[in-house]
Amino acid sequence: MNEHKIYCAGKFITTSNKLKVTNKYTGKAYSTTYQADEKTLNKAIDAAFKIKNKCKRLSSLEKYTALKFISDQLIKNKKQLAEILCIESGKPIIYANAEIERAAQTFLIAAEESKRLPGEILSLDWTPNGKSKNGIVRYFPIGIIAGISPFNFPLNLAVHKIAPAIAAGCPIILKPASTTPLSTLELAKIIDRTELPKGMVSILPMTRTTGHLLVTDNRINLLSFTGSPKIGWALKKQSGKKKVVLELGGNAGVIISGTVTVKEIIEKCVAGAFSYSGQICIHAQRFFVHEKNYKEFLSLMKKETGNLKKANPLSANAQFSCMIDEDNALRVEQWVNEAIKQGAQLICGGKRKGSFYEATILTNTSPKMKVNAEEIFGPVICIESYNGKIEEAVKKINDTKFGLQCGIFTDSISELDYAFINCEVGGVIHNEVPTLRFDQMPYGGIKESGLGREGVKYAIMDMLEAKVLVK
Amino acid sequence: MNEHKIYCAGKFITTSNKLKVTNKYTGKAYSTTYQADEKTLNKAIDAAFKIKNKCKRLSSLEKYTALKFISDQLIKNKKQLAEILCIESGKPIIYANAEIERAAQTFLIAAEESKRLPGEILSLDWTPNGKSKNGIVRYFPIGIIAGISPFNFPLNLAVHKIAPAIAAGCPIILKPASTTPLSTLELAKIIDRTELPKGMVSILPMTRTTGHLLVTDNRINLLSFTGSPKIGWALKKQSGKKKVVLELGGNAGVIISGTVTVKEIIEKCVAGAFSYSGQICIHAQRFFVHEKNYKEFLSLMKKETGNLKKANPLSANAQFSCMIDEDNALRVEQWVNEAIKQGAQLICGGKRKGSFYEATILTNTSPKMKVNAEEIFGPVICIESYNGKIEEAVKKINDTKFGLQCGIFTDSISELDYAFINCEVGGVIHNEVPTLRFDQMPYGGIKESGLGREGVKYAIMDMLEAKVLVK
Amino acid sequence: MNEHKIYCAGKFITTSNKLKVTNKYTGKAYSTTYQADEKTLNKAIDAAFKIKNKCKRLSSLEKYTALKFISDQLIKNKKQLAEILCIESGKPIIYANAEIERAAQTFLIAAEESKRLPGEILSLDWTPNGKSKNGIVRYFPIGIIAGISPFNFPLNLAVHKIAPAIAAGCPIILKPASTTPLSTLELAKIIDRTELPKGMVSILPMTRTTGHLLVTDNRINLLSFTGSPKIGWALKKQSGKKKVVLELGGNAGVIISGTVTVKEIIEKCVAGAFSYSGQICIHAQRFFVHEKNYKEFLSLMKKETGNLKKANPLSANAQFSCMIDEDNALRVEQWVNEAIKQGAQLICGGKRKGSFYEATILTNTSPKMKVNAEEIFGPVICIESYNGKIEEAVKKINDTKFGLQCGIFTDSISELDYAFINCEVGGVIHNEVPTLRFDQMPYGGIKESGLGREGVKYAIMDMLEAKVLVK
Amino acid sequence: MNEHKIYCAGKFITTSNKLKVTNKYTGKAYSTTYQADEKTLNKAIDAAFKIKNKCKRLSSLEKYTALKFISDQLIKNKKQLAEILCIESGKPIIYANAEIERAAQTFLIAAEESKRLPGEILSLDWTPNGKSKNGIVRYFPIGIIAGISPFNFPLNLAVHKIAPAIAAGCPIILKPASTTPLSTLELAKIIDRTELPKGMVSILPMTRTTGHLLVTDNRINLLSFTGSPKIGWALKKQSGKKKVVLELGGNAGVIISGTVTVKEIIEKCVAGAFSYSGQICIHAQRFFVHEKNYKEFLSLMKKETGNLKKANPLSANAQFSCMIDEDNALRVEQWVNEAIKQGAQLICGGKRKGSFYEATILTNTSPKMKVNAEEIFGPVICIESYNGKIEEAVKKINDTKFGLQCGIFTDSISELDYAFINCEVGGVIHNEVPTLRFDQMPYGGIKESGLGREGVKYAIMDMLEAKVLVK
Repeated sequence: MNEHKIYCAGKFITTSNKLKVTNKYTGKAYSTTYQADEKTLNKAIDAAFKIKNKCKRLSSLEKYTALKFISDQLIKNKKQLAEILCIESGKPIIYANAEIERAAQTFLIAAEESKRLPGEILSLDWTPNGKSKNGIVRYFPIGIIAGISPFNFPLNLAVHKIAPAIAAGCPIILKPASTTPLSTLELAKIIDRTELPKGMVSILPMTRTTGHLLVTDNRINLLSFTGSPKIGWALKKQSGKKKVVLELGGNAGVIISGTVTVKEIIEKCVAGAFSYSGQICIHAQRFFVHEKNYKEFLSLMKKETGNLKKANPLSANAQFSCMIDEDNALRVEQWVNEAIKQGAQLICGGKRKGSFYEATILTNTSPKMKVNAEEIFGPVICIESYNGKIEEAVKKINDTKFGLQCGIFTDSISELDYAFINCEVGGVIHNEVPTLRFDQMPYGGIKESGLGREGVKYAIMDMLEAKVLVK
Repeated sequence: MNEHKIYCAGKFITTSNKLKVTNKYTGKAYSTTYQADEKTLNKAIDAAFKIKNKCKRLSSLEKYTALKFISDQLIKNKKQLAEILCIESGKPIIYANAEIERAAQTFLIAAEESKRLPGEILSLDWTPNGKSKNGIVRYFPIGIIAGISPFNFPLNLAVHKIAPAIAAGCPIILKPASTTPLSTLELAKIIDRTELPKGMVSILPMTRTTGHLLVTDNRINLLSFTGSPKIGWALKKQSGKKKVVLELGGNAGVIISGTVTVKEIIEKCVAGAFSYSGQICIHAQRFFVHEKNYKEFLSLMKKETGNLKKANPLSANAQFSCMIDEDNALRVEQWVNEAIKQGAQLICGGKRKGSFYEATILTNTSPKMKVNAEEIFGPVICIESYNGKIEEAVKKINDTKFGLQCGIFTDSISELDYAFINCEVGGVIHNEVPTLRFDQMPYGGIKESGLGREGVKYAIMDMLEAKVLVK
Repeated sequence: MNEHKIYCAGKFITTSNKLKVTNKYTGKAYSTTYQADEKTLNKAIDAAFKIKNKCKRLSSLEKYTALKFISDQLIKNKKQLAEILCIESGKPIIYANAEIERAAQTFLIAAEESKRLPGEILSLDWTPNGKSKNGIVRYFPIGIIAGISPFNFPLNLAVHKIAPAIAAGCPIILKPASTTPLSTLELAKIIDRTELPKGMVSILPMTRTTGHLLVTDNRINLLSFTGSPKIGWALKKQSGKKKVVLELGGNAGVIISGTVTVKEIIEKCVAGAFSYSGQICIHAQRFFVHEKNYKEFLSLMKKETGNLKKANPLSANAQFSCMIDEDNALRVEQWVNEAIKQGAQLICGGKRKGSFYEATILTNTSPKMKVNAEEIFGPVICIESYNGKIEEAVKKINDTKFGLQCGIFTDSISELDYAFINCEVGGVIHNEVPTLRFDQMPYGGIKESGLGREGVKYAIMDMLEAKVLVK
Repeated sequence: MNEHKIYCAGKFITTSNKLKVTNKYTGKAYSTTYQADEKTLNKAIDAAFKIKNKCKRLSSLEKYTALKFISDQLIKNKKQLAEILCIESGKPIIYANAEIERAAQTFLIAAEESKRLPGEILSLDWTPNGKSKNGIVRYFPIGIIAGISPFNFPLNLAVHKIAPAIAAGCPIILKPASTTPLSTLELAKIIDRTELPKGMVSILPMTRTTGHLLVTDNRINLLSFTGSPKIGWALKKQSGKKKVVLELGGNAGVIISGTVTVKEIIEKCVAGAFSYSGQICIHAQRFFVHEKNYKEFLSLMKKETGNLKKANPLSANAQFSCMIDEDNALRVEQWVNEAIKQGAQLICGGKRKGSFYEATILTNTSPKMKVNAEEIFGPVICIESYNGKIEEAVKKINDTKFGLQCGIFTDSISELDYAFINCEVGGVIHNEVPTLRFDQMPYGGIKESGLGREGVKYAIMDMLEAKVLVK
């Protein structure tokens, strides 16, 4: 069985706490890696603190060169990396390939943005005492970043913290999810080949208990967390004087208006509903369909969901597979059964076998049921109709504590304008499911879905501090 | 009879060339003013040249204070100014009032923008030889501006040159139209009360022959012309080393798609067609109506056109009145008659009495007829149908040598997106006639409709030169 | 004695908890106002919540009109307002006048910025799946703001929260300092005369206990606090899911390099040291002087400090007066005495009488003494020499837990460049004391001096949420 | 002997007009290429016109991919390309290598900028009639570009037109200098291997007579010319309705203030004075030295100029070599001799042998002498002293009809600030000769040195037209 050392302050090391990583589809052990203990973590923070100023002085050329190299290597090693990612996460290989490509793209964008950090010139002679004065605003690295990333996009969501940190000139210590640390440790090997200062990036799997130091240590200036709302908001409370960015989840909604031809959008809707078994922060969980399209939509969704290729995620044509672990599958099963008891109607799916849960469609759900109100993070969707008025559709989109993204299929300008202004979310996706994200766009939620925005340029901005020269 | 002195290098003067300005509605003499001779013009240029550097050093506060004062005074004197403007131009008083308000708004925007001149900071360390270097880009006044403005918005189109020039820190010499110089000379009185350096603004009516010096004198750095395409393009050829901005005319088109309720848009369409007798650069001249709406649209337009209140422009409820002079009315009459001979069908109007030409609707016109192909600058429109496909409607919009603005009434996202990308114009106005302009937006045409953009911030940009400090 | 009602949800009300406001110079009662109880505060939050969406839909015109009106009224009533501000704060009338002017300027800037809220267009076709897609990013109000402001600039520091909130379209509840609530309550009267939705602004003096609801209530989306570091950082911990902006204090330093003529800068240095008895967040507390200038600087500072006009703050020529209360004067006395015991040398001052503490100069201090290490918030400065090397001067500037602003007097490009890059602060002020602030510039500290930036445009940005339309 | 076909509308072709290109050092024939006749040129314009809309619709991805490929290929083939460039231009191989690298950098920047074309969102609700309206400004390709480039940077100055044109989505027809067309024809081979539409780029050597069609043809929308002032300004007159960008020459000045150590800057000054025999638009032609440094500077410059390695440009250590042709060397000889007759003093150089002219230093020159007043475009510099006052130094910098760039060596903030504000140039280069240019910075002159700015982002901006959607 292979082994993955962890990456601390520029060195690949082992610790006494072994961590077995399984093949999520077979359940068998796949690789051994290690968990950082507090001493190891401290060493990483020490190193970061020591080279903080060196990182601050990196030129655009140095940062660009490193980031571009990493991007290129990800593409070069795509096949091998995608396989590891597929095995550790249980994600179909087509999606694993796409994730490697996105991670490469995220590094490419960061490479380019590292040459374009913001800066402003302000005239200050608006009042008599400012005569002849100007303000020159430049942005400097905020300091050390702590990144915590989840299992569902084990590589690209870690990269959305690492790449901006390098572009901004900030050291970063990243804690990957314990279930899926391998792809980021592979990334560490690539990063180690660049000429970035050793210790600028550390990648350390660890227990939540050990990781707590990332939240509380005052030498760290920014905590960037992607994960569940419950944990995210708890961390904010304990974060001391540091800045906090939270990228949490939601129960994204989609509006299917009366202006669309249903069969033309089904493929997108099925993908938004069930890719990677719905374990996606912007998984399309709630569908609101114009009443005149409701029946056709429900029937076509059922049909196409039935056609999804279920297989070992490593097989080239797999479209649907297991969940990350049995615990989560059990939770989903329980929520669905509870909803059915509360009056929801099961259209298809609803069965579980180990960590595999079927692609499941429900209707007649309400915001009182967990399947509708909470983040399901599993292959379950609710399809409901609305009375054809955009105001009602938007009201349903907003009838939740979350607010990440939503989708709307429509050709009506007035409907889209209304939805854009009134949907309480971070992003409105037109003629697409809410599951769509581009790595350069601002991404993040409002309400309980998060605080702050990622997307390379926006993440970099949060990792910088304005300093004004009045002159 | 009253008299208006002209404004040369900070002084109100007279010359030996008297210029009578008539009441355009009654045809009677209204005021006497003067034409600058070459010596006078030279004096204005000399003065501008001498204080160029003083103008460059004006603080934001000094420019803001002056521009804001002028804006406030325009509102304070609105009633009196609107009356003068109404009389000298023959424009209904409701429109004259609106023009004073817009001129005040243009000065207000310039006041605010004078505090927000652009500036940039660029990192230059993208290559080894740029190590530690940055570029600081600031924008400095380009030098002396020559402005030439037309009769149709005698005040606001002059203000679109004067206000940005002051905001940019450039001296300006403005030549108003000889038929309508009075409102800008009233403006001169307000400008004279500010603490701007004397000579920063000169306002000089003059013959086209005298004005030629504005085009050829090498001390002038930018020529900003608003007027007819023919003259504009000829000036560009003779402009020597100076920069040239041309705001010319067009034969703006409107698309009425199948998604709209005709009666809801008629009021806007009649206004776009006939306000100020169509003597507007973005007069809605060509209407292309979805074939299913064509008949209803034609009939309602005819009806509402018939309801326009014709009266002395000074009367509070006048909606329609005379043209600027009989020559122009004769030209319009000739074009319409020619079109009818070539097969166009007259729906209403078509008669002339002196400088008064009726609000006229034609159909069955083609791009071979002057009424369709040339800028009519009179109260005449062509209403044609199209086969319902947005591609055909846009093709018709583009089937002309001009390209200023167009309007499109639609609720379809795909129609609007197609129109925005493919209409060859400077502006696409949604659910409005193309006649709509906001003073802060970029405004200007492509093809034979002009070169460059106005709109306060954009006009200022053209009046500045980038200077980079590499450091 | 006069009375000031408090402003809750659009109404001027009284409560059962009277609050006496004294004349800080005479110590006598000056006016009676009221403290909001929890029920009153709740009413204000309820009202804000109800009209949140109405505020979001305010047009630029509506916001501009209200903000401009308030700015104009502040200037119009300057004399009367300055007197109230002078009396409640003990601030010399020349500074009180300046503060009214600055508050008017802050509202003016907000008026202008309300028309210029940010927005972006991003191409999203960088990868194959983005073909033809664009991102349109617009910024919407974040929701309800809670503002907490301090006694030292009772009006303008409150205005730095209220004006941006209105510009952003956010309701705001402001808690002024209990010692100095009158000038903001006067402002409330002006705000009440605008056509802003009633309840958009509430101004409520209250105890810290009652005010805690502002920190914990989940309907509030942003807490903006200006005050002491200790309280600020404690609030962050309790702030739940809301965003937090902290504008805290510091012990700002100044570098006097070897390239300057000492006598030319003394006037600025005395003002930075002692205006409003040093009760300013960016009070110039630590002076680091090139060794060749040290003696001259010390001696001239002593001399000019002796010349400060001490008087009743209401008298036109008062330059120096009492502190906010005796408790603070006692604290300052204690710190100075302690420093002297620890080896500091007293150059002048050092005596207290009631709430009056003399302008005091110390030398031979060290970062181990409170007068040097902590925020003194009183009329005390430390003057020390450095060896002439900019690296050492900057090291001294940075040898503290704070990082708000610093000043540097120099004509050397290399010194200024080094200082700008290496000083750990939010602002470097060239050829001025750090006490200089312009209301349009980004303002705020790093390290323990704060989180986030104010300055109208920057404060507005924090009160907005990005929403992207992918299309 | 080798042959270079020319690149017309996507095909490599020959014509009946052969053009011999010589090795500029040996004077022997090196390669044969062809001149386009009017028919060929017309074919290129026709093709560009036909695919104009296809080019407009290219995605960021398509443009980025092509531009990045070209950049990579230039680096890959650097050795071979540099040799050709060295031979055709007589430029020392170290500079030829640097030019290939810069051309690759220029394409890289364009690749990145093609994904970042500008766009703006404006609120339009500043007046009552704009209620709820916004302006969305996007920038579209202006149409067909005609580029004319000079011999001195035969590759990179052509690339500064080609790369932005591709990034903007505009077809371009480039006319390289007839003496040095080979490196751009090599570039054509690389461009031809991309998937850009055939005909988007044509590279056609031609006579000035044939080339005139590029200036007059109305299908071309922008003429971008880099070359001599005389020709540039003449073209503007004949350019019809098209936009014109002129990058012309100058007689760049440098200020050596009293704050610098002379020997530390000599190396940079010699390079700025004599690299590529001064045949550079921003060649450092006029040196103004603080009187206290004048003698030392003169003597050190003479010494180091004597140490320049003269050799066949192909040899690795060549620093100085021949001029482009004997005609130019003769002209330079004549100007120098004339200056000496007029009173200038020859410090070193002054001799000619064929196309080789010695590195020449003059002093006691005046703005009345051609060597000082005109663009020498040869290895000749004037070194003069000034009285130590920055005002006088800047006056000397400005005492010319040109205004491209200037350099200033100083450590004084007040000197640099004064110079930046008052030097009448497009760029002020601090602690460097004016010969420094970075490919991402705005570059271009004022006065007779040009119209408009290049530098990738700025050149792209000129190749785009704003279109506003009012909605």
